[in-house]
Amino acid sequence: MTDIDSVLAALADDPYNAVVALDAPGVRAQQPGPGPLHRMPVAVKDLIDVAGMPTRCGSAVLADAPPATADAEVVVRLRAAGAVIVAKTHTHEFAYGPTGDVAVQGPCHNPHDPDRITGGSSAGSAAAVAAGMVPLALGTDTGCSVRTPAALCGVVGLKPAFGALPTAGVFPLSETCDHVGLLGADVTVVATAFGALTGQLLDPTAPLTGVVIGRPTDPYWRVHDPEIAAGVEHAAATLSVAGASVREVTMPGIDELGATYPVIVGAEAYATHREWLAQRPDDYQPATRARLLATARMPAADYVGAQRTRRSVSARLREQLGGVDLLLTPTTPIRATPIGAEHVEAPDGARVQVRPALLSLTLPFSLLGVPAVSIPAPGVTGLPAGVQLAGLRGGEQAVLAAAARVSSG
Amino acid sequence: MTDIDSVLAALADDPYNAVVALDAPGVRAQQPGPGPLHRMPVAVKDLIDVAGMPTRCGSAVLADAPPATADAEVVVRLRAAGAVIVAKTHTHEFAYGPTGDVAVQGPCHNPHDPDRITGGSSAGSAAAVAAGMVPLALGTDTGCSVRTPAALCGVVGLKPAFGALPTAGVFPLSETCDHVGLLGADVTVVATAFGALTGQLLDPTAPLTGVVIGRPTDPYWRVHDPEIAAGVEHAAATLSVAGASVREVTMPGIDELGATYPVIVGAEAYATHREWLAQRPDDYQPATRARLLATARMPAADYVGAQRTRRSVSARLREQLGGVDLLLTPTTPIRATPIGAEHVEAPDGARVQVRPALLSLTLPFSLLGVPAVSIPAPGVTGLPAGVQLAGLRGGEQAVLAAAARVSSG
Repeated sequence: MTDIDSVLAALADDPYNAVVALDAPGVRAQQPGPGPLHRMPVAVKDLIDVAGMPTRCGSAVLADAPPATADAEVVVRLRAAGAVIVAKTHTHEFAYGPTGDVAVQGPCHNPHDPDRITGGSSAGSAAAVAAGMVPLALGTDTGCSVRTPAALCGVVGLKPAFGALPTAGVFPLSETCDHVGLLGADVTVVATAFGALTGQLLDPTAPLTGVVIGRPTDPYWRVHDPEIAAGVEHAAATLSVAGASVREVTMPGIDELGATYPVIVGAEAYATHREWLAQRPDDYQPATRARLLATARMPAADYVGAQRTRRSVSARLREQLGGVDLLLTPTTPIRATPIGAEHVEAPDGARVQVRPALLSLTLPFSLLGVPAVSIPAPGVTGLPAGVQLAGLRGGEQAVLAAAARVSSG
Repeated sequence: MTDIDSVLAALADDPYNAVVALDAPGVRAQQPGPGPLHRMPVAVKDLIDVAGMPTRCGSAVLADAPPATADAEVVVRLRAAGAVIVAKTHTHEFAYGPTGDVAVQGPCHNPHDPDRITGGSSAGSAAAVAAGMVPLALGTDTGCSVRTPAALCGVVGLKPAFGALPTAGVFPLSETCDHVGLLGADVTVVATAFGALTGQLLDPTAPLTGVVIGRPTDPYWRVHDPEIAAGVEHAAATLSVAGASVREVTMPGIDELGATYPVIVGAEAYATHREWLAQRPDDYQPATRARLLATARMPAADYVGAQRTRRSVSARLREQLGGVDLLLTPTTPIRATPIGAEHVEAPDGARVQVRPALLSLTLPFSLLGVPAVSIPAPGVTGLPAGVQLAGLRGGEQAVLAAAARVSSG
């Protein structure tokens, strides 16, 4: 059995509902060229076009979608780097949710505990990497959708800077927040892939001497799980030992910034789905339909105002944090919750609303458009959690170098 | 009497309601440095901050505005180039209208016929230049507001590319369409000033050999005045003689593009004025209030959709017109109308709605964000009219070189 055959066998046996489409003969027919990803099997979130396969976005709305006639630009680049596209993976319906348990295919299951969510929306990509089916998968991240499933499944998830990877051929959720991102088994494979897709040479082993890392102390960043807090402490200590200067910072306006997210994404998502919602409302999962309709009557001035607040608070934060290279935060305030749960009692006793919690700590960096990576939180036992490094200066290189250091302990 | 004294005397005697604020002692106290605009008297639309003078935007809403504490960035640059700021000029209230006859100060009067409008919103800037009070004035242009008053008053008006001149310190109408622009007595002074403000050296005498100039033939561009049509013909002939290749082009989607303008500007303007409208509606002129309230209930999805259409049609047009350097069009389909008229019977017998007509032919280049200039239409008798040159390639340099050629006949 060739290596591709064994990958196909694992994908066909997927027990987590991570794989939504597999074209084994098509996969075997691919002739990967040379390149930094030569013969690497890569799974692609089913929100991203792969030529010859339909893009169904986890929805019955697109049950009859014809096969895509062309690869999305990022898939073109993956193939050009030598990768083999092996499967389409589960997405929360239309990427509009952070849990991964709302889709026409049913929920995606966390390989660390199949009764629990993977996080989303790039649910299947995270699960496939976590289960060892593929070393690398494509996802998309509007507010959390690469980083949160990476955290909950114990893998590495990179949301690059806004626009760093092309979104052509990717079904939109929010054009001013959508990012294409990468999920991988470790920092090295993510760095290699990001470099291959953008024509850069990244060095995740670059020294951290003199790098200034801020730890935001605002109440906004509070977590509900002491193991996650300990993981962030652990990461901070590792970065400090590696020569970084780690200091506490505050982010004035972070609550105001965060409040713009549901307005901006709500307006943009509804604009995309308005006609389908009117014509075939029953083809949506009820949770997705309700969420889309919640912003149907939003006045335009609210949206315009939210974009203004986003710009002004972002500018103020960048000025305020002018001397800081990276921010270190938890990725999520809680770990994977039971499938279908809307509220949970967290380890600290708080009653937590799952959906906003899973978005809260990642969405600021979507609004800011800066690169951010989630890596497994060191020292956590049981279900995995993530720590997040976000780059204010130095781009993906700086973020991945710090992530690599934390990962290697 | 010094030259500044004579300028101040003319501004103080202004019979057109072009000047809304004059600080003669302040003007005399200015010590202009050397620079390309050394000692040039410049008037500034009263939407743009000049330190020490209030910015009233033509509205009773700002009757009690304190003096601006700092110059707008573009005024800083004017002074750095040696200019003397001599007056604030009339603006259509909050720049939200193309006629110049709606403001707390009353209408601005066209120097070519004081019973007629100047066009707006940079009404006073156009009138002051047309009357010879100043050689140069600052205006702003969201859909037409430099080019239309320039056309109706017989002067030159440049709307540079979006973002080419800074809008910091300028009261916003629509952040995705607002441009700062220049009105001047001739192309040379406008080119000199634009060069001084941006650190470029522009050469309006550059040859036109090989320049491709498109003349759009879509019904959208139809005018209601045969003299304006003849002026465009005349300009085309001049450009052709000068070595340009003038050809007819079509602009598919131009109607769809144009229809996004009231949605985009309506949403953004209402978002700015929402609180004042609720608190002190009677401080607005009735026409401005009605126009602002007309978009109060617009759904966010309409706005998002309009911005999407703007982007997609713009991209298509740029591709379609890939071989074209400049477009030559009329600036407005009619000439200056009687003050207060909402409808007129045009020379071709059509009943024309004044406000949309005065915006229609200029707003596409606001939405596209490309530079566009209006210059007096050659050969027109009686009231002036304008021809417009818009740049798809080559920036302000290309636009101004063609404008200079048309101006010199």
